[in-house]
This record gives sequence, structure tokens and C-alpha cells, in this order.
Amino acid sequence: MPLSKLIAIVAGVGPGTGASVARKFSSHYPVVLLARKPENYEGLAKEINSAGGKAIGISTDVSSKDSLAKAVEGIKQEFGQDVAAAAAIFNASGPFMRKPFLEIPAETFSSSLDVSAMGGILFSQSFLPLLLKGVGSSEHPPSLIFTGATASVKSNAQMASFSTGKWALRALSQSLAREFGPQGVHVAHAIIDGVIDIPRTREWLKDMPAEAKLSADAIANDYWWLHTQPKTNFTWEIDLRPAIEKW
Amino acid sequence: MPLSKLIAIVAGVGPGTGASVARKFSSHYPVVLLARKPENYEGLAKEINSAGGKAIGISTDVSSKDSLAKAVEGIKQEFGQDVAAAAAIFNASGPFMRKPFLEIPAETFSSSLDVSAMGGILFSQSFLPLLLKGVGSSEHPPSLIFTGATASVKSNAQMASFSTGKWALRALSQSLAREFGPQGVHVAHAIIDGVIDIPRTREWLKDMPAEAKLSADAIANDYWWLHTQPKTNFTWEIDLRPAIEKW
Amino acid sequence: MPLSKLIAIVAGVGPGTGASVARKFSSHYPVVLLARKPENYEGLAKEINSAGGKAIGISTDVSSKDSLAKAVEGIKQEFGQDVAAAAAIFNASGPFMRKPFLEIPAETFSSSLDVSAMGGILFSQSFLPLLLKGVGSSEHPPSLIFTGATASVKSNAQMASFSTGKWALRALSQSLAREFGPQGVHVAHAIIDGVIDIPRTREWLKDMPAEAKLSADAIANDYWWLHTQPKTNFTWEIDLRPAIEKW
Amino acid sequence: MPLSKLIAIVAGVGPGTGASVARKFSSHYPVVLLARKPENYEGLAKEINSAGGKAIGISTDVSSKDSLAKAVEGIKQEFGQDVAAAAAIFNASGPFMRKPFLEIPAETFSSSLDVSAMGGILFSQSFLPLLLKGVGSSEHPPSLIFTGATASVKSNAQMASFSTGKWALRALSQSLAREFGPQGVHVAHAIIDGVIDIPRTREWLKDMPAEAKLSADAIANDYWWLHTQPKTNFTWEIDLRPAIEKW
Repeated sequence: MPLSKLIAIVAGVGPGTGASVARKFSSHYPVVLLARKPENYEGLAKEINSAGGKAIGISTDVSSKDSLAKAVEGIKQEFGQDVAAAAAIFNASGPFMRKPFLEIPAETFSSSLDVSAMGGILFSQSFLPLLLKGVGSSEHPPSLIFTGATASVKSNAQMASFSTGKWALRALSQSLAREFGPQGVHVAHAIIDGVIDIPRTREWLKDMPAEAKLSADAIANDYWWLHTQPKTNFTWEIDLRPAIEKW
Repeated sequence: MPLSKLIAIVAGVGPGTGASVARKFSSHYPVVLLARKPENYEGLAKEINSAGGKAIGISTDVSSKDSLAKAVEGIKQEFGQDVAAAAAIFNASGPFMRKPFLEIPAETFSSSLDVSAMGGILFSQSFLPLLLKGVGSSEHPPSLIFTGATASVKSNAQMASFSTGKWALRALSQSLAREFGPQGVHVAHAIIDGVIDIPRTREWLKDMPAEAKLSADAIANDYWWLHTQPKTNFTWEIDLRPAIEKW
Repeated sequence: MPLSKLIAIVAGVGPGTGASVARKFSSHYPVVLLARKPENYEGLAKEINSAGGKAIGISTDVSSKDSLAKAVEGIKQEFGQDVAAAAAIFNASGPFMRKPFLEIPAETFSSSLDVSAMGGILFSQSFLPLLLKGVGSSEHPPSLIFTGATASVKSNAQMASFSTGKWALRALSQSLAREFGPQGVHVAHAIIDGVIDIPRTREWLKDMPAEAKLSADAIANDYWWLHTQPKTNFTWEIDLRPAIEKW
Repeated sequence: MPLSKLIAIVAGVGPGTGASVARKFSSHYPVVLLARKPENYEGLAKEINSAGGKAIGISTDVSSKDSLAKAVEGIKQEFGQDVAAAAAIFNASGPFMRKPFLEIPAETFSSSLDVSAMGGILFSQSFLPLLLKGVGSSEHPPSLIFTGATASVKSNAQMASFSTGKWALRALSQSLAREFGPQGVHVAHAIIDGVIDIPRTREWLKDMPAEAKLSADAIANDYWWLHTQPKTNFTWEIDLRPAIEKW
């Protein structure tokens, strides 16, 4: 199988980590950008295509099995029935509220679990077949990478609508690492412990030095590093935080 | 408020841990038994009532907000609008399959999360108001106890349909411990690490000594011990396993 | 073997947890009090003996193999060569400094490791033979309990001279739990997460309610509870903290 | 300060990971090789110097403060009083025995702690001043990296003479990461979870594929990757294991 058939899929693109990761991987693979709203991937796809890479965006709801099935169909139409994946990156998170537990609607919890937990499960069930197909033909072991957070390992007061999904996602990644590592797919989980420097957080930590925030581009480099690890040396989990972060 | 108004609620009764816990707490409080199928609580309610205790069963689906609302309504009809809780124990788990990840239907994952994760959330939202009402009037700090498993802290290959929900539930319990401890409610999580000696597991580990299985009655004693800890000495988490268990 | 031959040993008695634990266990077993300075056990031994219990104190440096060998010798002289132990509780900690790492003398680190790590190892090597002898003749499984701290699981800045020893001690307790559980000895580790209410801390947290501190007597109850767990339901680790503690 | 003054120090070189790490870092910095026995660094120093790099070896016992002080003196004589460090890698481990706890001499435990725990502490106290001097003049944040093992996070039966030191070392690394990260030094800990493919392990896992062992050169690449992370994105901990490893 020619290497050109190998693609990278990024779920949860937007103006932050997802975009940086997609840009980074686009210099090596055609990338598929998944987001619910087209405005979250259109500009990025254009940018990557203009820069000489190849990117397509597909409007996808990762909490819906049908929506993901359509995404896989779209990918096969674009890249051929025998398309394989070198990387699949799950960077989506459900909505949540930082509030007293009894004031949070049950719907917020279930929406959060739908994306963070079920979304991760459905994404994995959709793209692991493509990653398995990539084993052997990919220069680097095909990689399935999940974006976690501080709340993936610590469940603070008033954060349960975020942490429940994030702990579930971490459990998923650990189980998949154990099942699919021996089959040649590298499954990894990154604990992003701090504020990422993206447009949405521009006003945060304004009295701190610039380096108080994580760089989204540096996260992308770290994901690329995970991707290039050989079969003898897989990392399941890394944590990432600014040097000056309190933890 | 007279102490007699304090009740204990046990979700997930059946012929195992839930029943033992209900029996144990019934010697101190009227108990409410929640299970989907009446056959899971009817015999037990009869047994407790015959023994001089007080028990009522309510057919409840903990993954349904409406069903839990009806259970709360039923409890208020039985024990009065100002009923308070001394203990609420969440002992339910969703269905799961130990199978290759790609062979497990998405529905199994979502059913598992519906009970283990959302069930725990909805149960907590339903009964924390009663537990908070118990603060001050209860001899022991009102307690919200969650039953976990080995899979709450380790996510093995092919176990993701169980562990995702169990990690989410553990996250919930930690967040609630941090939020409600200062308000006087004791939130705890028990990691049951081994096979419990119940009718369903009678044929398991048959070539091992009897003590290779956890005693459900001893688990109930441990839950009672957690319940009687004073406000100065709350335990969030215990692990429980047979002495001869490999871990 | 008559039950009266079973003793409890407590290392690290003083005016706090150790004393409470010794008092609690003295209502069931003769207790041996180990501390470097006789003034740390003399009053307590007198108190227990006056109250109808039985206690002897032995001046012991737990970081010294020879000193512990002498303690064992003294115990055999007092209780007979065939003495067995129902419980051995290691409650000692080495000295430490909360200071910038580069300002702490190397000697402070080694003294801390000598007590917290080597002390725990030597104490275990000295008394596990007596605990093993207690298996079968003790009503409750003989128990080896280690006192840990917040710093047993979290290693904060400037706390390395405490946490290095405490992490080592926790590692010891986990390994021993796995090795000696199947032999009938219950090995447990308690994470004391907060300030204990003892004479030395009287002036601490003065602007907080009394319940902001852990009760040493309640810790002793918790250790007793661990001791009484049956072989089917051993807990390796509990955490203990005031309800209002931030964690 | 010219970049040429920046050195890398590797403790615990020998025919495995230490040598690979030293080779990797030698293509960027002069390297100082520390080992007790000159035969462990002489060949490597020659090899690096022949290949156009710069390496010196210093016979050093990391468990001795005086020996480390002499090493620092030797480094200053060679590289100047104002020498700074870009990296210091602690790859040493004490001796241990995999045996029943009661059969292991106390001396084995103390020797293990002397190297793994005190060695790590003394090494850090010796070289953090040089790393701090490197802040600002080094292209990449000066890095202090510790080599851990499976036994750094899991303490199995009969493994206490290894795990106690390794848990202590991990505690040290976490505390130092929190204290020195904000000062610009990147402190990291690598959990090597599996057998490394080195001469000493040639006969191990012979019935398994070659990729069942970790590559020492790939570990060196991972350490280099840690070293090159920018201040906004520090990783404290990575785990590394062969894809087919059971964990």
C-alpha cells in the first residue's frame, strides 16, 4: 500500500489544540478535520490546502454513531475504500458547568458524558479499523491519541460534570492501549494541565507572564513525538504544563 | 427532628452486596430498597420487616431522572415530606461485555454509562438533599457511599465497557466528597477488588479456599464503619480484597 | 496457644496518635511501647497499667537493627520466647525540613530516610515473625499497620525530605500486603491527610472550628477497625481527613 | 555565556540506557560520565571523543556526598568555574534482591536506598546549581531527568528492596519539578516499564520477538525529546514500554 493512502483524523478542531495538531500532522499526511460546525474547520482546511497540504472537513457529531458512520463513508469516498490511518486524534470535550452539584441540570452531565465518554468510544470504534489497516504500511506505528486535562486525574469540587467524562475517557485510553498496543496501534493519553494559549483564553491570566499558558503548537509537537515513538518504546501517558504552573 | 425520621436508601439491591448492606443498615434505620425488578427487593423487604426492621422497596431505574423522582415521591409519601437520610448507598452497575473492543455494540457502552455514571449522578442529585437534611439530626454524619471495583482504578484490555463507567463514578465520588464533606455529608468510595461470595458466583473459584471470595456481610460491616466515622476523620476511599487475592 | 500471649507493639508513641493507638489496643492486648526517649512512653505505660491494662515501654531506635533486636529480646523476656503478636503499628517518622531543597543538609534527608524508610523495613523484619506466629491463634488476623501522611501520595515543593521517606514506606506496605496477606497477616497503610489534634498542634488552625483537626482517638478506632477485618475483606489503604479539609 | 560552556552529566552509565543517553546528548553537549567503576565509562568516553564529541569520565559513588563533591570539582577544573549544565540525568539504581522479605539482609535495603533515594538527592543537590546557572543561556530549558521503573509505581511482593528506593526517587522528582520548574529547570521522571535490550538482558525473553524489549537508544531519544520541550509545555512523567508488554 503506498504511503499516500495514509491519513490523519482529528476530532474536535477549532481555534486551539485541534487546529495546531491538524497543521502539524498535515505536513506528513492528508488530514480529515471533524467538528460539528463547519466554521470550525473551513478556514483551517483552506489554510492547509493553500499551504500545499491536503485537508478535508466533515461536519460530525462524535456523540452520534450515525454521524461518525457518515464521516467514515465520506473519508472512503475521498481517499478510497482501502484508506488507512496513521493517526486519529480525539480532542473533543463535552459541555460542563463549574457550579454547585445540585444546581447543574442532569442534561449537562449527560451531554458531557455523550461527548467525552461515548464520543471517545464511538470515535475509537470508527477509526481503529483504519488504524489497524495502517499497521505495517505506516512509517510510524499508527497512533490513537486522546486529549485529557487536569480533571482526568483529579476530580475537584464542582467539576464533576467535566471530570466524570474525562476519567471515563482516560479509562478508555488505558484499556485500548493494552488491547491494541500488541496489535501495533499506539494508544496514548495526554493530560493537559493548565490553560492553553488560544483566542478564547486571551484574557485569562493577564497578570502572568506569557509562558504561564501552554502553547497549542507545542502540544502538537508533543503529539507528533508520541506518534513517532517506535514499537519498542510506547508511551501511554504524558502530562503537560507550563513550567510556572502550580500543581 | 426525631431520629426515627432518618432513613437509609440502597440502590442496586439483589442477592449480594446490596442485600447485605440493606440488612446491616436496617438494624439502625428504616431502609428503602431500590431495584428495577421487584423480585430483587421483595423477599428482602419481607425478611427485614419480619425481623422487626422496616423496609420498603420501590421499583426504580437509576438511569432515569423521572424514575428517581418518583422514588423520592414514594419515599416522602411513606416517611413524610420532611424525611431525611442517614445514608444513601449506590451499589448499581451497568451491563458490560468482556470482549474485543470492536466486537462490543455501542449500545453496551452507553447502557453501562447510563447506569454506572449517569445513574450515580442522578442518584446523588436525588438523595443529597435528603442527606443534607440529615446533617445535625443524625447520630453519625449522613453518608453517601459508592461501590466501586478493581475496574475503578485499573482499565484492562477488553474491560472498557465496565471501566469507563466505574472511573466516571469514582470521579463523581471524589468531587462530591470535596464539595459535601465541608457541608457535613460523608462521601466515600469502596474499591471491591475480587469476587464477592454471592449465589451468582457460587461456581467460581471452586478450586480455591472459601476465603478466596469477599464476604458481602463483611462489606456491609465496612460500609457501616465508614458511616460511623466522625466528622474529624472521614475516609474517602477504601479498597477491600481477600487476603489471598493476587493484586 | 492461649490468647493472653498475643501482644501489640506500637512504635512511635508520644503524646499523639501513637498514644491513642496504644490505649485502644491495650484494652485487648498487652502493649509494648517503643520510642527513643523513655519520657515518651513512661507516662503512658503507667496510665495503661493503672487502668488495668498491661504495658511496657522499651527505649528503641527503629533506625537501628541492633536496637530493634534488643527490643525483641526484651519482649521475649517479658512475654516468653513463644510470644506472638496480634498487631504491630509503625507510627514513626524521621525529621524533615520544609525549606528550599538546596538549603536542606544532606544529613536531614538521610535521617529522614533512616527512620521513615529503613525504620519501617527494620520494624517489619523484627515483628513479622511474631505476627506470623499469631496467625491462627489470634481472634483477628494479625495486623501490621503503617501511618502515612498527605506526603505519602503527593510530593510538594520543599517537602522532599519528608515525602521521600513516606513514599518509600508506602511502597514497603504495598509489597508486604501482597506478600504477607496470603500468609494471613493483614498489612495496611493509613494516609493521615490533615493536622492531628495533639498538644503540639494546639496553636495551629486556631481560627478554624475544632473539627478542622483529626482526632487521634478516632484514628485509633480506625486502626482497630482495620485490625478486626476478616481474612475475606482486607483493606490495604485508607485515607483519613477532617470533613472540612481542602484536598 | 557562550553555549559551549554547557555540559550534560549522566550518572549511572554502563552498557545500557546510560550509554545511549550519553551518546545522544554528546552530539549537542560535552558529556560527563559518572560511574563507580572506570570500566563502565572508559570505553564510552573514548568512543564519544573519537566520534568528534567530548566526554570525560569521573569515578563517582552517587551515594557519597564527598564523592559527588569531588566530581563537581573535577568538572569545574575541566570546564571552568562558571560551567553550567544543560542536562543532568540520574540513571543509577541500588542493588536489590527479589526474595521473600524476611530473607533479605537489612544491608541490601539500605544499600538500595543509599543509591536510589539518597543518590538521587545528592546528585540533585550537586548539579541543580549548575542547571540553574544554565537557565537563560541554554537553548532548551536545563533538564534534570530521573530513570524510574515499573517498581516506581507498583510495589510487588518480594520487590520491596527495589521499590522503596524507586518510590522515594519518584517523590523526589515530583517535589523538584514543582520547586524548580518555576525557576526554569525542567525536572522529569521516566517510568521504564519492561526489559531494556542491553547486553545483560540478551538471554531474556528469548522466545519473544525482538520488539518485546525496550530500545535503549529510543529511551535516549525520549529523554532528548523531554529536554527540548519549551517552558510552556513541561512533562513531568512519561511511561515507556514495548507495544506487546502486558501491563
